[in-house]
Amino acid sequence: MSELQTTIEGVQGFQAVGVNCGLKKDPTLLDFALIVSDQPCVAAGVFTTNTVKAAPVLVDMQHLEASPEQIRAVAINAGCANACTGRKGMQDANITAQWVAEAIGCRPENVLVMSTGVIGTHLQLDKMRKGVEAAHASLTNDWQSAATAIMTTDTHPKMASVTVKTSQGTYTVAGIAKGAGMIAPNMATLLSTVVTDVKLNVEQAQKHLQQATKKSFNCVVVDGDMSTNDTLLLLANGMSRVELITPEAEAEFYAALEQVCVSLAQAIVRDGEGVSKFITLNIQGGYDDAVAHTIANTIATSPLVKTAFYGGDANWGRIVAAAGRAGVTFNPDCAKLWIAVGEQNSLSDDALLLFEAGKATEYDEALAQQIMGASSVTVTLDCGDGAGQATVWTCDLSHDYVSINGHYRT
Amino acid sequence: MSELQTTIEGVQGFQAVGVNCGLKKDPTLLDFALIVSDQPCVAAGVFTTNTVKAAPVLVDMQHLEASPEQIRAVAINAGCANACTGRKGMQDANITAQWVAEAIGCRPENVLVMSTGVIGTHLQLDKMRKGVEAAHASLTNDWQSAATAIMTTDTHPKMASVTVKTSQGTYTVAGIAKGAGMIAPNMATLLSTVVTDVKLNVEQAQKHLQQATKKSFNCVVVDGDMSTNDTLLLLANGMSRVELITPEAEAEFYAALEQVCVSLAQAIVRDGEGVSKFITLNIQGGYDDAVAHTIANTIATSPLVKTAFYGGDANWGRIVAAAGRAGVTFNPDCAKLWIAVGEQNSLSDDALLLFEAGKATEYDEALAQQIMGASSVTVTLDCGDGAGQATVWTCDLSHDYVSINGHYRT
Repeated sequence: MSELQTTIEGVQGFQAVGVNCGLKKDPTLLDFALIVSDQPCVAAGVFTTNTVKAAPVLVDMQHLEASPEQIRAVAINAGCANACTGRKGMQDANITAQWVAEAIGCRPENVLVMSTGVIGTHLQLDKMRKGVEAAHASLTNDWQSAATAIMTTDTHPKMASVTVKTSQGTYTVAGIAKGAGMIAPNMATLLSTVVTDVKLNVEQAQKHLQQATKKSFNCVVVDGDMSTNDTLLLLANGMSRVELITPEAEAEFYAALEQVCVSLAQAIVRDGEGVSKFITLNIQGGYDDAVAHTIANTIATSPLVKTAFYGGDANWGRIVAAAGRAGVTFNPDCAKLWIAVGEQNSLSDDALLLFEAGKATEYDEALAQQIMGASSVTVTLDCGDGAGQATVWTCDLSHDYVSINGHYRT
Repeated sequence: MSELQTTIEGVQGFQAVGVNCGLKKDPTLLDFALIVSDQPCVAAGVFTTNTVKAAPVLVDMQHLEASPEQIRAVAINAGCANACTGRKGMQDANITAQWVAEAIGCRPENVLVMSTGVIGTHLQLDKMRKGVEAAHASLTNDWQSAATAIMTTDTHPKMASVTVKTSQGTYTVAGIAKGAGMIAPNMATLLSTVVTDVKLNVEQAQKHLQQATKKSFNCVVVDGDMSTNDTLLLLANGMSRVELITPEAEAEFYAALEQVCVSLAQAIVRDGEGVSKFITLNIQGGYDDAVAHTIANTIATSPLVKTAFYGGDANWGRIVAAAGRAGVTFNPDCAKLWIAVGEQNSLSDDALLLFEAGKATEYDEALAQQIMGASSVTVTLDCGDGAGQATVWTCDLSHDYVSINGHYRT
């Protein structure tokens, strides 16, 4: 398996491009992306669990149900979420799929659509039509422009790819994503499309995408809000002719997929609204994995913890207090809390123990402040309660987050 | 029943005072309060449900268990929460109770203690001793100084009282509280003591205090964090000689208690950290009351909703999206959302309908912005799903909240 790249050189049989059709507040920006496969793809999707689902989410669920082995394209617009738009919203999403289908020569249900932007406004169909036409006319291998077109408050495009060499040949797993705000535990406001030229069946696609989501997009928290539009798609066109016949081959594919998804998910946190600090939260010794994950999410969504991170304050009391209100088994008398500089997957030798046996250790406050001053910090909490483990990536809550979200529509 | 007052003229047989003993960062501020009853009180308490409970919380639970009809005093310090302080923290809380008991002539278990401030530091016992001595020496009827001494990031003291005239005589219900940050659904970081000279039995005290909490302190949200120290106490010394014999008399007492608690709870939100806007969230038509309350709390804790309030943005999409991720029954196609200026208990005639049947109405955006620009706004969400109802009082999330909490310890 190759090293992870944060660029996409290309995946056999896929084309991608981002164009401008005037949907964003700044009408000169790229705002419409189109991804097309030469051959029909096996596809799978993971969607927001919000009961308020945007029209494109509902349309994609229908299309994946109707033709999970015949997906040809994904069309993504920014500038308008097409959420809370009633029957007209559904019509608009369906018309967009239809235009793409006509352009590339397939059925409307072979096209998936995604939208991101303000909730409650209707798609400007004249502009969408121009977007479809311009993108189709300029289809090429330009993933950078596609990743740029889907950005909202993101400050840079997000791409990741891994190439896998096998005895049958070489295949690639590559994805683009956008995030920035409304990043909750359990999917972010996240649009992401991952494509691969390996050959998958529908069952494999869905199983691996769900598992990879659990280990990547469901482990990132920016602000704890869950969007109406969250969508993660996987398209596999099989054009590398590599099939996953052995369990080892399947495991290798899964590893590549998880690596791409984790990279995209982490990139979303790093580029979260107003983020100045990247936090890795390792919970270990939880009663079970689910308890560990609940504790991690409660800490990661606590405004008091997040503002302390922003201030570079080693305020372990807020972290322990957040764990205590998570509504699951947690006994501070059995817990230990460490901090360390950087992104650590497990407890590092240089981690500083702040809390043990229900109270603070006699740690060096100057050292604690120095660690908390770093741009990436790992917090490890051992609950002393079992073998449960969870890792969540999150960020601080800054003045800029408030500025960005206080005036997003205006 | 008299009008609610936000001052306390006095309650028969109770004395109160706040003094300075040097516990706060600014050592000249009042920081220690003592409330003493001439006669033993029937008392009840409601405490944080955080599994990380501060030492004074654990001590009070023990003392209320040991002598629920013999409580004589409440001692409250600011500047140190005595939370996450291990065995020494318990000793320190017990010693404080013992000093007060010696000063006023009772047993240590007849004294309740409360602490607020930084988590994880130990009480400075020499200063606490001075506080006990100074407060005992100057005991009087100065509720204003007591309410001032318990403040942390509060900007003003919080008091409320109601006097009830009955055929048996007159009694008063009066309380002080502090709040500001870590104000969650289900108790705020809240210390509050309510005293009354009516005669209650233990069962009445606990029952009415729990019910009043449900309708007041459990309905306020500043930031969704729950403290290690939340404590609400009720002391009844019976010195008015009024007893609650009939159900009507008991209902009248409960009404007065609820009024005092609601006033204190709302005062905490109004004075929340960095708050610039007071929001009344009325949820109606929920599947049941519990569902309505869950939806209200999810909206009230959403950073995206709170920053939109701060920006004066009528961003109904974020409110509906928050309701949709509450994890309970909610169908946007059946929901309606209105906004209005002021603090409304129910839907007012001048409320502006923003959202209906799954999409935005054709509302007047200028009018919506004008309403959202007011310093108090009522949001009414009808879920169209049943008869469940909940009201929650909350606030915006501002730059000042981030400033205050980014650097609280430093």
